[in-house]
Amino acid sequence: MQHAPRNPDFEAIVRESFARQAMMSTLGAGLVSVAPGTVAISAPIRPQFGQQIGAAHAAFTFALADSAAGYTALSLMPPDHDVLTSEAGIHLLAPALGDRLIATGSVVKTGRRLFVVRSEVFAETGDRPGQGRTHVASFTGTMVPIPL
Amino acid sequence: MQHAPRNPDFEAIVRESFARQAMMSTLGAGLVSVAPGTVAISAPIRPQFGQQIGAAHAAFTFALADSAAGYTALSLMPPDHDVLTSEAGIHLLAPALGDRLIATGSVVKTGRRLFVVRSEVFAETGDRPGQGRTHVASFTGTMVPIPL
Amino acid sequence: MQHAPRNPDFEAIVRESFARQAMMSTLGAGLVSVAPGTVAISAPIRPQFGQQIGAAHAAFTFALADSAAGYTALSLMPPDHDVLTSEAGIHLLAPALGDRLIATGSVVKTGRRLFVVRSEVFAETGDRPGQGRTHVASFTGTMVPIPL
Amino acid sequence: MQHAPRNPDFEAIVRESFARQAMMSTLGAGLVSVAPGTVAISAPIRPQFGQQIGAAHAAFTFALADSAAGYTALSLMPPDHDVLTSEAGIHLLAPALGDRLIATGSVVKTGRRLFVVRSEVFAETGDRPGQGRTHVASFTGTMVPIPL
Repeated sequence: MQHAPRNPDFEAIVRESFARQAMMSTLGAGLVSVAPGTVAISAPIRPQFGQQIGAAHAAFTFALADSAAGYTALSLMPPDHDVLTSEAGIHLLAPALGDRLIATGSVVKTGRRLFVVRSEVFAETGDRPGQGRTHVASFTGTMVPIPL
Repeated sequence: MQHAPRNPDFEAIVRESFARQAMMSTLGAGLVSVAPGTVAISAPIRPQFGQQIGAAHAAFTFALADSAAGYTALSLMPPDHDVLTSEAGIHLLAPALGDRLIATGSVVKTGRRLFVVRSEVFAETGDRPGQGRTHVASFTGTMVPIPL
Repeated sequence: MQHAPRNPDFEAIVRESFARQAMMSTLGAGLVSVAPGTVAISAPIRPQFGQQIGAAHAAFTFALADSAAGYTALSLMPPDHDVLTSEAGIHLLAPALGDRLIATGSVVKTGRRLFVVRSEVFAETGDRPGQGRTHVASFTGTMVPIPL
Repeated sequence: MQHAPRNPDFEAIVRESFARQAMMSTLGAGLVSVAPGTVAISAPIRPQFGQQIGAAHAAFTFALADSAAGYTALSLMPPDHDVLTSEAGIHLLAPALGDRLIATGSVVKTGRRLFVVRSEVFAETGDRPGQGRTHVASFTGTMVPIPL
């Protein structure tokens, strides 16, 4: 699917909204890339976000997947809209072990009333991005454009 | 559905596993009740877990829903098992605004290979439990028993 | 949740839409009950709708679950609306074996832009409704009101 | 993901199981291609499988998506296994209008206890395969290997 960026300022809008998401800074998450139709978010895997067997908690993985998907949708929305997750499903494929998680969004469907978006989450180990990758989760969700 | 508690020590096992979930203490979450087939978890809604418009982030709601559902499954598993979320879907019904969230799990299906579980999440405002309730999310997931 | 029936003719509207669903008559399905906020649909389990091990195909179960949920949503919509399924998740709990399936819908959330609905599907064996019941599936979906 | 075909007879096994699915022949569905890790199924859109506004019913789309995904999983399983859908989610992206639907499966995760699979469903219009394509649905599900 080819999408014209409907909003020339999509990057500023995504970055500004991300900066207001307290949860993202609490998790130590940062924007890796912002393009129309695909936004990537990364965060270090820290012990305080772990579950009972030492991997990152499913909610940590969900947080990155959901935000990457939501900002991917927002990057294609008209100006003066915010985005809310209406529903989401996540499949957890492997324990979230490693140095960091990276979630990358993509768009399945755009629409006036709702967007369907995906994100894939990988765990990485090592200093270089893309190193030692494990596919840890697949996420699909419905995002609703909210006129401001 | 009526379930005999297969494990007489289910409460100790749930409490011990919960205590090892670093994410739960990071979120300020606590066990409200532990019974065979239904576990409830609560946490205060704090600004650092918010999203861009001030409500709790979907991942915060997901964290409580997933943990309540997972421990609900664990409460009915045989001894010497841990539980992992295989997949989960969440519908976000209303903004998570208020003093605290409470998530309560229930079992749809038990099984040797997998459990299907639900949890419902409510936001509460005011001093007394159950006060000012808003239904903020419905969660359904598949939990896998992992022999230890 | 309590819902005032917004449309005094909800029953006629549901029955008329159901009658136009060719798939429902192809499957031999009929409306069991129509009330504001809960619609039930039943169909006999026939060999031609089976899967490879003799139970009803997941798509047959899905068909009843989806229609019960959709008409449950429609029963609470304003006049001059149709309903479309935007997304749905189904958990298959037991093989769909027996004489018939019955799916009963319920509403989780109503809204201007979308409804969240559920349905539970049971297989029944024997002559009397409610006899020999097995819970075969749980369905949750998002239904979109479409102005006509 | 690269998968060695674990079963040299995967194609015969998929074709034999497909032939036993009465629902598939009832819907007029046929196998388009069978390869390890991706199976495609097609069926003509016929009026008797329609919904209230004339497109194919969501259950028809679900049937093809689920079967394509299930046989995709089966194509990678060891011999002497059957496959059951444990849960599935489907996003309906556009009305299923046209001459036929085609569903193509892919594998997200293989495993001893469960597979995570996807399928994408397209509506096609015109004589040539691939012509006039509309993406009508995305499906993700969990498939369980059942030892025979």
